[in-house]
Amino acid sequence: MSVTAPMGFSAAGVACGIKPDALDLALLVAEQPAVAAGVFTLNQAAAAPVLQGRASLHQSHLKRGIVVNSGIANAGTGSLGMHNAEAMAAALAAEIDCDPEDVLVCSTGTIGPQLPMDRVVPGIEAAVLRLDATAEAGAMAAAAIMTTDSVVKQAVVEGEGWVIGGMSKGAGMVRPNMATMLAFITTDAAVGREVLQSVLAAAVDISFNSLNIDACESTNDTVIALASGASDISPEPNEFATAMEDLCRDLALQMAKDAEGASRVVTINVRGAGDDAEARYLGRLVADSALVRSSFYGGDVNWGRILGALGTADVVIDSNVLSISYCGIEVFSSGTGAEFGEVALLESMETGDFAVRINVGAGSGRANIVTTDLTPEYVVFNGERS
Amino acid sequence: MSVTAPMGFSAAGVACGIKPDALDLALLVAEQPAVAAGVFTLNQAAAAPVLQGRASLHQSHLKRGIVVNSGIANAGTGSLGMHNAEAMAAALAAEIDCDPEDVLVCSTGTIGPQLPMDRVVPGIEAAVLRLDATAEAGAMAAAAIMTTDSVVKQAVVEGEGWVIGGMSKGAGMVRPNMATMLAFITTDAAVGREVLQSVLAAAVDISFNSLNIDACESTNDTVIALASGASDISPEPNEFATAMEDLCRDLALQMAKDAEGASRVVTINVRGAGDDAEARYLGRLVADSALVRSSFYGGDVNWGRILGALGTADVVIDSNVLSISYCGIEVFSSGTGAEFGEVALLESMETGDFAVRINVGAGSGRANIVTTDLTPEYVVFNGERS
Repeated sequence: MSVTAPMGFSAAGVACGIKPDALDLALLVAEQPAVAAGVFTLNQAAAAPVLQGRASLHQSHLKRGIVVNSGIANAGTGSLGMHNAEAMAAALAAEIDCDPEDVLVCSTGTIGPQLPMDRVVPGIEAAVLRLDATAEAGAMAAAAIMTTDSVVKQAVVEGEGWVIGGMSKGAGMVRPNMATMLAFITTDAAVGREVLQSVLAAAVDISFNSLNIDACESTNDTVIALASGASDISPEPNEFATAMEDLCRDLALQMAKDAEGASRVVTINVRGAGDDAEARYLGRLVADSALVRSSFYGGDVNWGRILGALGTADVVIDSNVLSISYCGIEVFSSGTGAEFGEVALLESMETGDFAVRINVGAGSGRANIVTTDLTPEYVVFNGERS
Repeated sequence: MSVTAPMGFSAAGVACGIKPDALDLALLVAEQPAVAAGVFTLNQAAAAPVLQGRASLHQSHLKRGIVVNSGIANAGTGSLGMHNAEAMAAALAAEIDCDPEDVLVCSTGTIGPQLPMDRVVPGIEAAVLRLDATAEAGAMAAAAIMTTDSVVKQAVVEGEGWVIGGMSKGAGMVRPNMATMLAFITTDAAVGREVLQSVLAAAVDISFNSLNIDACESTNDTVIALASGASDISPEPNEFATAMEDLCRDLALQMAKDAEGASRVVTINVRGAGDDAEARYLGRLVADSALVRSSFYGGDVNWGRILGALGTADVVIDSNVLSISYCGIEVFSSGTGAEFGEVALLESMETGDFAVRINVGAGSGRANIVTTDLTPEYVVFNGERS
């Protein structure tokens, strides 16, 4: 179950012909106007659907539906692209009897080409006929938003009398892979617009925003949450926030595990920074290094590269107080390499995923950045002509 | 010819046993105290020899010699590392009869291990016996500073009655590869300390600092210039500056061509930025993207990834005024992909190296950033256990 787990939502996924022979158009529809919140990419070359989504949420916070296509990003497409994003909203609105302003649009795929609207609009009409609140319909929608993903990503977290469901695609909000990161979250909890927006933004920060597969922020990254209120239960705010965090973390981890060409998920735990933002900055500096991520691939305990990456920070790094551990085994402290049981450590790393812990000082700032290794497969995959 | 081309310098390269069976210790000695200038890494985890070099140049601007070892970086080595760097300077000073303060020390190689001083000191003594002003001695020194380099990098630029020579290793000052970038430059022109320092810093900026193989700044990066004045000619400052730029660009290009695992050198020409610094920042943003560099590897004309990378800038990017060309053929302008002769363009790219030109606006700021493609070989190479 995913986006159809909470009451009040139906979904569909169809193949409309943007991709050859694959699901490429998803709908998510609320029976009644649902409270909506969104987090969008900060990329200045944001795609047309991102501009549509931002403007639409600015206009009103109640939405009836979301239409998503995969295969073409509708980015770098100028005014025709903007027109097409609006036409997608209008097409769904006409079918479900609402204003185009009540519909959000998302796209993911190749940057550049224009959408084949002669296929997209009939695709929306066909998808409306398949709308259903079953788990299968949710899974079809989750499959239809995939691009380079190899598996469908869905998650559900249950509260007391209310549910949050979600689906996502791609690998890494804010610092995503080639493929844009999209996530759609539904709940039947009764929550207001402000709570939904702030809880969503906080959860995105510690989940999708802490996923660091690549140093690029995509043109299309979007996370949208819809709350139907159909359970008639208003959860205690902390409880709701925790459930939202758990859901987003679950989806983010599924995305890391499915990152293009990756063979290991590596968590970089930064401790002792001035504050959490500084800890996150330092963790990303390490996770952004192609050299560090190449060493993760080879299972090489190369603390020198981590030290080198941290040394480029624009905050003070004192290598004499810094310590670095792999798999709980300290390998660097007090300015020099530490003696450690190399055989035992290498054995722990053989198993695949592992954690690196970096203590940078005595502060209370902490962050957990999730990344993957950089592999030859990644380069081959991303070097293919589009 | 390289560092021994100008009058007043001798060099040597020997194998002292840091590396198994390879040249790993180089000397560069001035007959008389030479005017010295240096540019060092800004990495906060700077290696012991970098600290030694900065302190030494701060103390006095006349130097008699430089001792360089490869194989071990003497970084992350604490107070023993600092002691060893100073001992290297003292060992050469004792042999050539000067103060230890008159000697500069550089190291490059693996971060972490301590130097085997029982081999390094006898190595310095042996190398002193080999000091010579021949081209061969210069080439031996250039070979002894190599780490992962596959070829020796040397260059000479002749002025009117004076000469500049240089040798380097590694791939990219400020944003170098695993291997630190080192460069040593000699001249017999008669120039003062301030001119030498400012001319060197400016030349480093547009050459080594515009080389962008990797997003990491190493712990050991160093460029040192020595001027013997032995020609008794004081060149016109602009002429000297141009010669220094030509020499540094020549060495930088040799380094790019020899970058670990790279198959293409790609020049990113940014035009129309607010100023040169902004142009350089934008060019690096593009060259830092693993996705962009993977597309260079595959010869994929993927302007969408360039657009995506530029969109993450912290300066305003207007995709409606932006244009992107590959090999002189415009592929993006006015907010959308341009029609172009794909076959002809792909043919131009098949030949290997190529240039991407990015016009970001109407400003006068420009920069040429040299990078390479990201290849599976790079990852395999840098994933190997050290």
